[in-house]
Amino acid sequence: MFAVFPTARLRPSPFYASAVAEGMTAASIYNRMIMPTSYGDPQAEYWRLINGVSQWDVGVERQVQLKGPDAGVLAQILSPRDLSGCKVGQGKYVPLCNHRGTIINDPILLKLADDLYWLSIADSDIWFWASSIAAERGLNVEVSEPDVSPMALQGPKAEDVVAHVMGDWVRGLKYFWFRETEIAGIPVAVQRSGWSKQGGFEIYLKDGTRGTQLWNIFKEAGQPWGIGPGAPATAERTESGLVSVGGDTDEATNPFEVRLGKYVDLDVADDVVGIQALRRIKAEGVKRHQLGLVLEGETPAPLGFRREDILRDGKRIGMMTNCVWSPRMKANIGYALIDASVLAGETVQVLRDQGQVAAKLVELPFL
Amino acid sequence: MFAVFPTARLRPSPFYASAVAEGMTAASIYNRMIMPTSYGDPQAEYWRLINGVSQWDVGVERQVQLKGPDAGVLAQILSPRDLSGCKVGQGKYVPLCNHRGTIINDPILLKLADDLYWLSIADSDIWFWASSIAAERGLNVEVSEPDVSPMALQGPKAEDVVAHVMGDWVRGLKYFWFRETEIAGIPVAVQRSGWSKQGGFEIYLKDGTRGTQLWNIFKEAGQPWGIGPGAPATAERTESGLVSVGGDTDEATNPFEVRLGKYVDLDVADDVVGIQALRRIKAEGVKRHQLGLVLEGETPAPLGFRREDILRDGKRIGMMTNCVWSPRMKANIGYALIDASVLAGETVQVLRDQGQVAAKLVELPFL
Repeated sequence: MFAVFPTARLRPSPFYASAVAEGMTAASIYNRMIMPTSYGDPQAEYWRLINGVSQWDVGVERQVQLKGPDAGVLAQILSPRDLSGCKVGQGKYVPLCNHRGTIINDPILLKLADDLYWLSIADSDIWFWASSIAAERGLNVEVSEPDVSPMALQGPKAEDVVAHVMGDWVRGLKYFWFRETEIAGIPVAVQRSGWSKQGGFEIYLKDGTRGTQLWNIFKEAGQPWGIGPGAPATAERTESGLVSVGGDTDEATNPFEVRLGKYVDLDVADDVVGIQALRRIKAEGVKRHQLGLVLEGETPAPLGFRREDILRDGKRIGMMTNCVWSPRMKANIGYALIDASVLAGETVQVLRDQGQVAAKLVELPFL
Repeated sequence: MFAVFPTARLRPSPFYASAVAEGMTAASIYNRMIMPTSYGDPQAEYWRLINGVSQWDVGVERQVQLKGPDAGVLAQILSPRDLSGCKVGQGKYVPLCNHRGTIINDPILLKLADDLYWLSIADSDIWFWASSIAAERGLNVEVSEPDVSPMALQGPKAEDVVAHVMGDWVRGLKYFWFRETEIAGIPVAVQRSGWSKQGGFEIYLKDGTRGTQLWNIFKEAGQPWGIGPGAPATAERTESGLVSVGGDTDEATNPFEVRLGKYVDLDVADDVVGIQALRRIKAEGVKRHQLGLVLEGETPAPLGFRREDILRDGKRIGMMTNCVWSPRMKANIGYALIDASVLAGETVQVLRDQGQVAAKLVELPFL
């Protein structure tokens, strides 16, 4: 383990002081910001997410704001998913692709008004990419990064906590729908969302000076439900089959390869970035797919920074893109991005530092 | 201090195993890769760079490769610096701007052939930005990230070490010029370059499987000169006035504001990305500029993650974008990005966590 070296190139979120006060022990860097990943008790943090309610600083999920008469036009040009039915107050999960059909991000798109959208992004520089597409197309839209920073409440008890603070109307929010409102005078948007499958909400803070105040409101309100700090959980997201773009994908991965084909509408207009490549890829047949791996062995393997080769009969057929101990499955599990001809049910070998480890291929999600 | 959480989203460089073996204690994340920043003895690492020779894993400086008949056309479209005189074997420092004239990266451009260029980038996603510009313009060029990872030798004795390994021809290389060659069968490009003002070379490894071998060749060759591990040094680069894009710049900084106007040629063709905005900015007058700050006090201040407000007569006039203890100046120094009407020689106040600290504005570089 090694420390994160302080530099102004890496920005804190408005909840950074709260995360430090809660005892953050590890972090990742995401969109050149610090994302807390642990508070020193991974077991407690995992089970709190599975059984209770966990509070996350996910201010690193930056918003790319599209504002102006052509905001909707640009949103659709960037999205291979058909947005024509998207209503104000609705969010949609959208894989963004480059002109070659390679996935470069997978934001939640929020439609705040007919001329105002946010892309709540994963870890890549979408703001200057999107603004350059807009400029090249001569669109009348301003692309910027507004002062908006999400905090997440995740877990089966998250709804009770958020309803306690915001009111019972939040129970009626459909998945990815949101409402703009205030808490104690703090401007926020409240969305049913979050990077887990345990249910919950994201509270988009719209005033970066009030992060500590917002954090404490939910921390205090959540005490009866045993709220505590947590973070997007590698084990839970893997069990649940969520995709991490940039981790599970490489510089040539298209959405069809990683189970995101259902978010691609091949009949959107021809001017959508990447759609012509995506149609060609689909027509020619997708070469790789993503399956789960259940590795042999009953000892938790350490987390690592690299992808590992997968072999069958001594021949490389793809790579394991992540691997983590699953407390519920009591096994090391991961994702395979492999040749499409290799199917669930087969046993393969993963080339790990300690040697080859047998693994069984299964369909995702695991749980 | 907190640890970097392992994930495959953050990639190791080919020199990662060497950095770990050398005792890396801290790292930054740069282009979603791990960049070692310390090996546990910052004092020794600093003075080794100033007086000797330091070996750096800077594999995070990714190459964005432009290859094909329109490679040169694209290079110029992306560069507000005139490249018409750039020769094969030559490198040039180029600030890249978006269509609004905002600086988004500042790579060294290397011309390897008339149809082959590398942009050796700072920390932002230039590959899909550049490839999207190429696609929008209908250019015949392939944009990719090749298997190329720089290692740096920096310091006044670096030339002796590199000449010992490569031959005396390296002594004749002009600044940013390079040559493609081999060391022990390992394909490399050798360039007089590096993110310090202490002199040195970057060795671009062109086979990621041979990082440890290349590291050890230079480590062993450098023993007579007292070589040791190091990293881009916050103190040295600040003393030397080098710009860190993304740290010293914000989402609205143009090259003129941070002393990079000399790398902008306003008479390049109209189709260069951002040039029209840069001409307008220049004509209207640049609103901010970058100066040095020498803070009062004789105690090294800790490094931090955030920018800090600068006040004059109680009014905010800009921000301090970095701050570090200078061992040679025996003072905390930093950069100010401030209103252009505020000049060197004035004394201002920096709003730090511990309260206001007086600071004198000076011209850059400090040394």
